[in-house]
Amino acid sequence: MLGAWGGWQAFRRCASLPRTQRAVRLRVREALGAREPADEVKVQGWVRSVRSQKEVLFLHINDGSSLENLQVVADPSLENRDLTFGSAVEVQGKLVKSPHRMQNVELKAKTIRVVGPCDTWLFPLKTKERHPLEYIRQFPHLRCRSNTLGSLLRIRSEATAAIHSFFQDNGYVHIHTPIITSNDCEGAGELFQIETSNEARESAEKTHFFSVPAFLTVSGQLHLEVMAGAFTHVFTFGPTFRAENSQSRRHLAEFYMVEAELSFTESLQDIMQVMEALFKTTASTVLSKCPRDVELFHKYIAPTQKDRLEQMLKNKFVIISYNEAVEILKQASQTFTFKPEWGCDLQTEHEKYLVKHCGEVPVFVINYPYDLKPFYMRDNEDEPQHTVAAVDLLVPGIGELCGGSLREERLPFLKSRLQRLGLADAYQWYLDLRKFGSVPHGGFGMGFERYLQCILGVDNIKDVIPFPRFSHSCLL
Amino acid sequence: MLGAWGGWQAFRRCASLPRTQRAVRLRVREALGAREPADEVKVQGWVRSVRSQKEVLFLHINDGSSLENLQVVADPSLENRDLTFGSAVEVQGKLVKSPHRMQNVELKAKTIRVVGPCDTWLFPLKTKERHPLEYIRQFPHLRCRSNTLGSLLRIRSEATAAIHSFFQDNGYVHIHTPIITSNDCEGAGELFQIETSNEARESAEKTHFFSVPAFLTVSGQLHLEVMAGAFTHVFTFGPTFRAENSQSRRHLAEFYMVEAELSFTESLQDIMQVMEALFKTTASTVLSKCPRDVELFHKYIAPTQKDRLEQMLKNKFVIISYNEAVEILKQASQTFTFKPEWGCDLQTEHEKYLVKHCGEVPVFVINYPYDLKPFYMRDNEDEPQHTVAAVDLLVPGIGELCGGSLREERLPFLKSRLQRLGLADAYQWYLDLRKFGSVPHGGFGMGFERYLQCILGVDNIKDVIPFPRFSHSCLL
Repeated sequence: MLGAWGGWQAFRRCASLPRTQRAVRLRVREALGAREPADEVKVQGWVRSVRSQKEVLFLHINDGSSLENLQVVADPSLENRDLTFGSAVEVQGKLVKSPHRMQNVELKAKTIRVVGPCDTWLFPLKTKERHPLEYIRQFPHLRCRSNTLGSLLRIRSEATAAIHSFFQDNGYVHIHTPIITSNDCEGAGELFQIETSNEARESAEKTHFFSVPAFLTVSGQLHLEVMAGAFTHVFTFGPTFRAENSQSRRHLAEFYMVEAELSFTESLQDIMQVMEALFKTTASTVLSKCPRDVELFHKYIAPTQKDRLEQMLKNKFVIISYNEAVEILKQASQTFTFKPEWGCDLQTEHEKYLVKHCGEVPVFVINYPYDLKPFYMRDNEDEPQHTVAAVDLLVPGIGELCGGSLREERLPFLKSRLQRLGLADAYQWYLDLRKFGSVPHGGFGMGFERYLQCILGVDNIKDVIPFPRFSHSCLL
Repeated sequence: MLGAWGGWQAFRRCASLPRTQRAVRLRVREALGAREPADEVKVQGWVRSVRSQKEVLFLHINDGSSLENLQVVADPSLENRDLTFGSAVEVQGKLVKSPHRMQNVELKAKTIRVVGPCDTWLFPLKTKERHPLEYIRQFPHLRCRSNTLGSLLRIRSEATAAIHSFFQDNGYVHIHTPIITSNDCEGAGELFQIETSNEARESAEKTHFFSVPAFLTVSGQLHLEVMAGAFTHVFTFGPTFRAENSQSRRHLAEFYMVEAELSFTESLQDIMQVMEALFKTTASTVLSKCPRDVELFHKYIAPTQKDRLEQMLKNKFVIISYNEAVEILKQASQTFTFKPEWGCDLQTEHEKYLVKHCGEVPVFVINYPYDLKPFYMRDNEDEPQHTVAAVDLLVPGIGELCGGSLREERLPFLKSRLQRLGLADAYQWYLDLRKFGSVPHGGFGMGFERYLQCILGVDNIKDVIPFPRFSHSCLL
């Protein structure tokens, strides 16, 4: 993409400048994509390798704008003892076509200034080493300078933009749903509670800052439902929290969720269509915007992931009902730790089996038992309180990636269910939404970190988020 | 923008369909922008007015895709008692050119189905009333259905997208900085602390979920600095928190901040340039994407704001030093509650005076006293520990909108300042950033809600966020 002298705007700015003017500053990515030679450019970045030969000094510098480094060629007289791996430099010189096969452009240095030296002895990253992800995880403030995390975070940034675009292009209004909330959406209990730091230090007998107990959100869904009653199609993309005491490769205490809610929707099909389009559109955008970064993962981290992803993008996602899923599991030759039984939740082992059974493509499982799911899901009325219009999306290598449902929009159904749960008073406002112009609606949430794991083939969720938070760990 | 029969893609999809096919669903905005008449369209939304005449029934319906309603014209026989203000309807019919001056298009209804009735007696919003913002604030789950909040939230959504685009277009990598953090960035003390809900109920003698005390972030800056050491230009746009016991029109406990950090930056000029460009680009995008929504505010909420905004966008922002600011204030004829004095913080009354003094345009105030500012700001070395390279952006009607600085990148300066504060151990990782390839850098943060207040002229910050959180209030 940054191929032979096909480049960026900045370069044209640079090329058209009179020679007497001071050097034009270029990002490494701009320099690598330059169209034609240019005098007096300035590139800043961090040294990724130093190779000193008798007649020539080679540097590779990187400024995070791309995975690729810019090769700097200099006279050996420009070498100095601070010019080491990890140091920050400013190189001024001439951008020329490279004689080497590996790059199109190189920078013939006139001057090299070390802006900030690096104590390579103490620096935990080492030149030209491909450090394992477990190793660099110990250095949350430095690991972004490795190739792997560099690529990951560029991809994460592009995926974030792609998700925003997907919804905006399709007429959704973006809503910042609240982080602090007074309602415990799912009643799951694994909540973080919030106090002012003074309160926290004092006794239990106190007034709360918000007058009521306040928690970190586990989902923006109920607030999105409020908004879907005004804007029809809405989405949110923000942090959510679980106080799960788990050190697993699949869970974080703080993670990001993409959630959407659609009014005037009477079938799960509509919801599944959006889920599938979101998955595929975002992946395609990421693949076309940062092919080299994705390649790093598909080459060195998860060699089978490239084919797998192609399969996922090419094929229509499979849809099976929960009933069918249980039958498939019952007939499996495999022995499960948890015996598959109608009315029980699908375990990770079950999810993996189902995905494999369907040919290693994403699988929607729909229409779950009524009693397994939260109060807001819509009763299918196939038998009294038998199943609800819920959907989970299971994907290869991960298991559950998305969950969604039609919401119970019928006041009598919702009211009696909340009453049975003793929640009718707490959710008076939620019942109100069904009193004033209620419409059939539904929505879903997608775990953003799991999505990144899924397209890149990253095993541990801690490696796809800039600063992972989990039980017993909140570094920085 | 949605002018005379100049419309949307969906309409073309619709217009090219064979007449026998079932009705094509259109959003109100699409219908209003339609190019030519069309049979068999279906529009869904909420009724904003019902006018029943002898020969004809008029409805206005809105689905949140635009401020404008779609006029539905129907035979009086289609009226029914559930067809009231606030009810949800599905109208099928023919899109025709309207004979009326006020709209280009209207929908000649064949069928009208009430999807969800509305108990207008209990519904707190009333037809054709322009409810004051204070009134609708009492109904956080319904106020988004008013014109004002509808426009506000569409603008907020567009502004969010514009900010993401601004940074992405300029080569910044987006970073999700953590919400839960173990460091108290500014040492300001007004922090929310986090416990699992069980812990919170138990005694003070306990182990923390994260093993250390954990707080809600007050700024992503320090984490962005980590990332600026790898990607050169980075930004974040997320929630931040202050446990300020304030009910003011200017403060929230949960609000959004846009923050950017730039490596290889040696002057405040660079930072101010980005701040000014962000302000102006975002405002221009919003003005061009939702002119009608902005007009609502400039017409009914803040009639002088339109001119004011034009002035802000047209003129270069003013730059004055803190020294100059103090001199201006000392020479003011006005008497201040807080006497202006070198070394004291600027109060809101001072900020307002300075903005007025400079001609009601945004004003950068730079180079603040060393002792007023946090440890990470760069010593200007004009006199020993006299001023730091800090900048605040003051804007008409609001006061402080942005704050930024160059960061102290020199290890000895930073280390000795942290040691004096007794923080050197806690910030070992932050010192590390200065040990390994340190570069001159700086950045800023902009309060997103204040920005919206500033461009729209909204007086109370609670009216520019979907779900306001402040002391004694955490509704929903």
